[in-house]
Amino acid sequence: MRVLGIDPGLRNLGWGVIEIAGSRLTHVANGIIHSEGTDLAPRLLSLYRALTEVVRAHAPDTAAVEQTFVNKDAVATLKLGQARGIALLVPAEAGLTIGEYAPNAVKKAVVGVGHADKAQVAHMVRYQLPGVELAGPDAADALAIAICHAHHSQSASRMLAAQRGVA
Amino acid sequence: MRVLGIDPGLRNLGWGVIEIAGSRLTHVANGIIHSEGTDLAPRLLSLYRALTEVVRAHAPDTAAVEQTFVNKDAVATLKLGQARGIALLVPAEAGLTIGEYAPNAVKKAVVGVGHADKAQVAHMVRYQLPGVELAGPDAADALAIAICHAHHSQSASRMLAAQRGVA
Repeated sequence: MRVLGIDPGLRNLGWGVIEIAGSRLTHVANGIIHSEGTDLAPRLLSLYRALTEVVRAHAPDTAAVEQTFVNKDAVATLKLGQARGIALLVPAEAGLTIGEYAPNAVKKAVVGVGHADKAQVAHMVRYQLPGVELAGPDAADALAIAICHAHHSQSASRMLAAQRGVA
Repeated sequence: MRVLGIDPGLRNLGWGVIEIAGSRLTHVANGIIHSEGTDLAPRLLSLYRALTEVVRAHAPDTAAVEQTFVNKDAVATLKLGQARGIALLVPAEAGLTIGEYAPNAVKKAVVGVGHADKAQVAHMVRYQLPGVELAGPDAADALAIAICHAHHSQSASRMLAAQRGVA
């Protein structure tokens, strides 16, 4: 199964694709989509087109998007919300199932604790995906989200298998 | 020139299309796109598809989207931001120019004062677009945004004409 992780952002949208085979995870690709300029609509369109191309190129089976940390800066929250709308739309349009995970759930899945910093997350992503070259911190976060989704999917599969065993 | 006005919202997205010929405005169509359910991604996808269909059916030349009123409810701001991302993406994808107007600028353009209530806006929309049947308050707001954009476009045209006259 191939998982696309997305760390949404208007200026830098991180993405990462991993392959799950049994309990083994392998890195497929990662990158950061940049949008610059002052006009919001063309920036959202460029995110949409680039992310659609990522889905086309890597054909994931499922996607996971980081839940946005809502803070007191309402203008920043609104900007992030607009980018997040695109981050959810693209995998939905491709017919993928989509998981959403809070930042501390992602850190807990990858590092083992919910309050890990970005360097720890990048370190554990490199450890779990040997040989990976990270495009940057946002791409590391996106791969972490994909790893978190993989763990949850595997737990769900094991639970289903156990339930079938009992039945 | 045909103008599409959009009042973004996750649950109810209002839209309205008007035609400008000289200083005369006529109503073309208006409606409300509903999205329901608990899963965000399919809701955003349904907004995207329905709004894309509106653009296809009515072929506007330009679009205007209400600027979101950022308030202290960060969760609501995030939701609205996600819907607004879609509201900006669809006309951008169709290659339309997009104007953004603050709610009080829209009210001032349509009613004459920036603090008008929804009933006053609907009343003045009916007055300026004789015979219009409004799909609801969100559709009235969307037509008001289109009227505001028409006024701004006409001012811009007159300024350009005046400048050419002087040159």
